[in-house]
Amino acid sequence: MIEFARRQVELGAVGICCQKLGEAEVMADAGLADILIPFNLVGPAKLARARALAERCALRVSADDPVVVDGLAEAFAGAPRPLPVLVECDTGAARCGVQSPEAARDLALRIDRAPGLVFAGLLTYPPKKSPEKAAAFLSEAKALIEARGLRVPTVSSGGTPDMWRAHEHPVVREYRVGTYIYNDRMQVAAGAARWEDCALTVLATVVSRPTTDRAILDAGSKALTADLVGQTGYGRIVDYPEAVIYALSEEHGHVDLSGCAARPAIGEKVRVIPNHACPVSNLFDQIVAVRGQRVEGTLAVAARGRVR
Amino acid sequence: MIEFARRQVELGAVGICCQKLGEAEVMADAGLADILIPFNLVGPAKLARARALAERCALRVSADDPVVVDGLAEAFAGAPRPLPVLVECDTGAARCGVQSPEAARDLALRIDRAPGLVFAGLLTYPPKKSPEKAAAFLSEAKALIEARGLRVPTVSSGGTPDMWRAHEHPVVREYRVGTYIYNDRMQVAAGAARWEDCALTVLATVVSRPTTDRAILDAGSKALTADLVGQTGYGRIVDYPEAVIYALSEEHGHVDLSGCAARPAIGEKVRVIPNHACPVSNLFDQIVAVRGQRVEGTLAVAARGRVR
Repeated sequence: MIEFARRQVELGAVGICCQKLGEAEVMADAGLADILIPFNLVGPAKLARARALAERCALRVSADDPVVVDGLAEAFAGAPRPLPVLVECDTGAARCGVQSPEAARDLALRIDRAPGLVFAGLLTYPPKKSPEKAAAFLSEAKALIEARGLRVPTVSSGGTPDMWRAHEHPVVREYRVGTYIYNDRMQVAAGAARWEDCALTVLATVVSRPTTDRAILDAGSKALTADLVGQTGYGRIVDYPEAVIYALSEEHGHVDLSGCAARPAIGEKVRVIPNHACPVSNLFDQIVAVRGQRVEGTLAVAARGRVR
Repeated sequence: MIEFARRQVELGAVGICCQKLGEAEVMADAGLADILIPFNLVGPAKLARARALAERCALRVSADDPVVVDGLAEAFAGAPRPLPVLVECDTGAARCGVQSPEAARDLALRIDRAPGLVFAGLLTYPPKKSPEKAAAFLSEAKALIEARGLRVPTVSSGGTPDMWRAHEHPVVREYRVGTYIYNDRMQVAAGAARWEDCALTVLATVVSRPTTDRAILDAGSKALTADLVGQTGYGRIVDYPEAVIYALSEEHGHVDLSGCAARPAIGEKVRVIPNHACPVSNLFDQIVAVRGQRVEGTLAVAARGRVR
């Protein structure tokens, strides 16, 4: 959402972060000037788009393999300015990333040697466990790269749950977060937010009360997503915190009211704090901005559906 | 999608079915003439829209509670033609629906008494288990209603997995299906389709190969959905059927290649048959129609995001 991207920059963010090139293009169109895509961009079509995008914003990307670096190097050969590339490190989250500090060093050197590229630092998505191991990986990689005479301009990590202690990290100097804008049930469970910090709710209507203990909402997996992210149930009903959304069909939320003293009637509207705000945001074309009980306007989810 | 809705009618469907009023409005705009919304419509805003919609197509809806019937009756008082309303029955799926054949009879009588409404039959979403019990519920409800002198114009059931034996049902005369248009991994697991019957695939790119056994796709929960629907993994990679998509981040599919003899390289494009085609379709603004290796065009997912 363009408004939230801009607001972060106004408040001091060095720039914004997009996972998809298509999302970054929407943000550049809106005037966002500094964009990081922490994702391996591969294939001639995307590389051509990346080069075009880099001509209208300060673009950085990441890479975790020589094949990816070589593709970027070919695409940016002769570019007006070199493309900053960070080396993505798998520090324990077991997703993308080079597997050792030595591999990080080697890839940094490869980037440094490529005429159209410039080495821009290290990047990771941190593991949920063993943050010390992750920190050790990054510190060692940084030292190995500096020992070869290269500067490590930044070390980038991320994730909302640990943002509050990001300043304690020995080498991380840049932090990528998104969920914090809204917060959600997962963040409350992680101790990173309180219920009153959760800004995104799905407004649902109780459409059926087939039994004393069962309510059906008109919000199913197409509104709340099937994302459990370790929670019990598919969201928290603000006014009925004891209610459990125990199952979702596509268009129905199945609610167990057996733990509730007060119970909603057919037609009652309820707000649901989703388990995971991010994929929920991705399901809607717009959000309605509300302050207290007053509707202040609507905002477009401008980059929704930019899957490429 | 308008084209598929039209095609079904061309091939003999009596009409189409939408879960959301907003979806039905898109289809009526496209000229679809017979639309069933098997969903309790509640609240003045939706009821006013339903009345407007009923003036430009043959609309039917369902209801499972006197409150819902009374709301429809009020909205359709004085309408040019009465609104056909089916009674939704909970025949074991434990979602919406009246809980007994007697309650179905009573609700049918209430609909029949309401000036703006006409009783249009019985409707259920069938349970996965005990189809005999479901059939007995519907048969008994039908008999009780007929014993009060009312005709039961139709009995509507649905679900792709059991469509092939819908003709064996003792009282069902109308069948609602959707997934069959594409089929998916869940339908293959249910024995209702073969892999070659699965028309919808997500075209993903292998963007990272961090280890010998791990590949990362650029398709995560925002492309494949977190819907497991009882499967192991989040989809089947057509050319690597032994690969397991064991986890999804929002933008990354995490693939275990340990069972694969051949393994994809970075940059390789793969097709993924999703677990559940329906919520996947809901994530994309358009689909690309392909015959063999030839792209024949794009089709808009016209009712995507019509959440109200």
